[in-house]
Amino acid sequence: MSSVKRTSEPQLLSSGNAHDLIDSVEAFLFDCDGVIWKANKLIDGVAETLEMLRSKGKKLVFVTNNSSKSRRQYVKKFQSLGISVSEDEILSSSFAAAMFLKVNNFSPEKKVYVIGEEGIIEELQLAGFTGLGGPEDAKKTADVYLDCPIEQDKSVGAVVVGLDRCINYYKLQYATLCIRENPGCLFIATNRDAVGHFTESQATPGAGCMVAAVCGSCEREPIVVGKPSTFMMNCLLKKFEFGCSKMCMVGDRLDTDILFGNSTGCKTLLVFSGVTTQSSLQDPSNDIQPDYYTAKVSDLLGLLGP
Amino acid sequence: MSSVKRTSEPQLLSSGNAHDLIDSVEAFLFDCDGVIWKANKLIDGVAETLEMLRSKGKKLVFVTNNSSKSRRQYVKKFQSLGISVSEDEILSSSFAAAMFLKVNNFSPEKKVYVIGEEGIIEELQLAGFTGLGGPEDAKKTADVYLDCPIEQDKSVGAVVVGLDRCINYYKLQYATLCIRENPGCLFIATNRDAVGHFTESQATPGAGCMVAAVCGSCEREPIVVGKPSTFMMNCLLKKFEFGCSKMCMVGDRLDTDILFGNSTGCKTLLVFSGVTTQSSLQDPSNDIQPDYYTAKVSDLLGLLGP
Repeated sequence: MSSVKRTSEPQLLSSGNAHDLIDSVEAFLFDCDGVIWKANKLIDGVAETLEMLRSKGKKLVFVTNNSSKSRRQYVKKFQSLGISVSEDEILSSSFAAAMFLKVNNFSPEKKVYVIGEEGIIEELQLAGFTGLGGPEDAKKTADVYLDCPIEQDKSVGAVVVGLDRCINYYKLQYATLCIRENPGCLFIATNRDAVGHFTESQATPGAGCMVAAVCGSCEREPIVVGKPSTFMMNCLLKKFEFGCSKMCMVGDRLDTDILFGNSTGCKTLLVFSGVTTQSSLQDPSNDIQPDYYTAKVSDLLGLLGP
Repeated sequence: MSSVKRTSEPQLLSSGNAHDLIDSVEAFLFDCDGVIWKANKLIDGVAETLEMLRSKGKKLVFVTNNSSKSRRQYVKKFQSLGISVSEDEILSSSFAAAMFLKVNNFSPEKKVYVIGEEGIIEELQLAGFTGLGGPEDAKKTADVYLDCPIEQDKSVGAVVVGLDRCINYYKLQYATLCIRENPGCLFIATNRDAVGHFTESQATPGAGCMVAAVCGSCEREPIVVGKPSTFMMNCLLKKFEFGCSKMCMVGDRLDTDILFGNSTGCKTLLVFSGVTTQSSLQDPSNDIQPDYYTAKVSDLLGLLGP
């Protein structure tokens, strides 16, 4: 994917350009971790900002690479933080993985082996697919010491790999057997984020860790459905009657959110409430530039008025 | 590393060239899995062939990427198969990892975090280093759901990653924290084999799987001490008074054994008793060519006489 270089320098969000931005955009796409919340805490002013955007008739979509939850579970998380959203407004990489199978006419007769958490299993089920593995295999062990082979289900036609905090050798072996030995088996990654901030305390290995492990044993690269892959944009383009130029991707990560926005032709707004700092944006080694940057989402509120 | 292309075609081992080979070589370096044994079964004729080579005054070294055992444990495995070898004749990637730290003057005051099995922990200890993790952390869980951070030991100055059939999220997180947050922390891989044949029944994920996982979460590449890296040859050159041209690497894998032999300037002999078949050797996509090839090690015996 080309990263569609911006010709102009990124602009600090100001009262002037914030009005231009809001006037030219019909949908705001928000990353969640580091933009809407940090771990389980809402970032200051987010609720009011979303309300203001809704009052101006803007569409909102929450586009997250975190596959641990389904859309239903994300709606509950938003509710627990006092924000009302509908499932329709959530585009998670767990859902995207199921949609990828759907739009590619994956046969519901075939099964899907999952290295990942509940979100993927639930979205597969809602899309009419049978997911194996995931939380169910959390306590399993591969008795390779005892020379007990694992018999992988020959009807597994796809392996989906996402964040899995119960990763183990059994799951890795099962996935490896499916990908290496079931003819035509797809290898789908929800995303490849190296680390995530799933709790307040520290960064922990992200889906990129589990995906790389499977790449390592299968000597194959996956199809990635999460950001910065443009697959999720295909889902959005089907949903809206307007094109990418009427959307603005708001995110805290250059290599996922901003790259995704730039490569699909969205406007892009980088916030510093997550993993990226102003100095890493301005570092000469960084070649991913947003259209706009600001400290946090609620700056929009201050600059535009309620 | 350059793969040192052979100018001539690989030769089928014959009575004529086997005599040339044996006359020109002072040490035979044998890979183990797929060459000496398959899982826990000795390959036919190996014992007699090794005896014949010893009777001709040849040095023998067993050079294995499998880090699960220490040299002491390998000697026991050889014994259990009826072959007598000394620890001095074993060069395992577990030992190589410890030697890498030794020759690079790694401070014994610092600690080493291990994703791997007993072999690495034991070799570290024998070399005077303190290994953490490994089997000890097999049952640990990272309570990231409960927002309990892991406190990594700040005195960890190196992470060694090898085959670990008790891999879990706790170990991945611990290693990730050490590599990302302890200044100057080394990241050492015993080897990067995608899969291994550790039992008779099926191929299972190799160290390449665990190493890739840590690369994925750390966004860093490791120092590899096993084949095809040339580090293990440095150990051999210290041991012998002759050079690489007087050695012959015998192995079943093109991308580790034969590449290692070729890039260090050894003679190379590929055997088909492990993962490589004659058709994969002759596949146009393969660009790693041995000097000689034959079905199995004991062909040497048949061609040279007892």
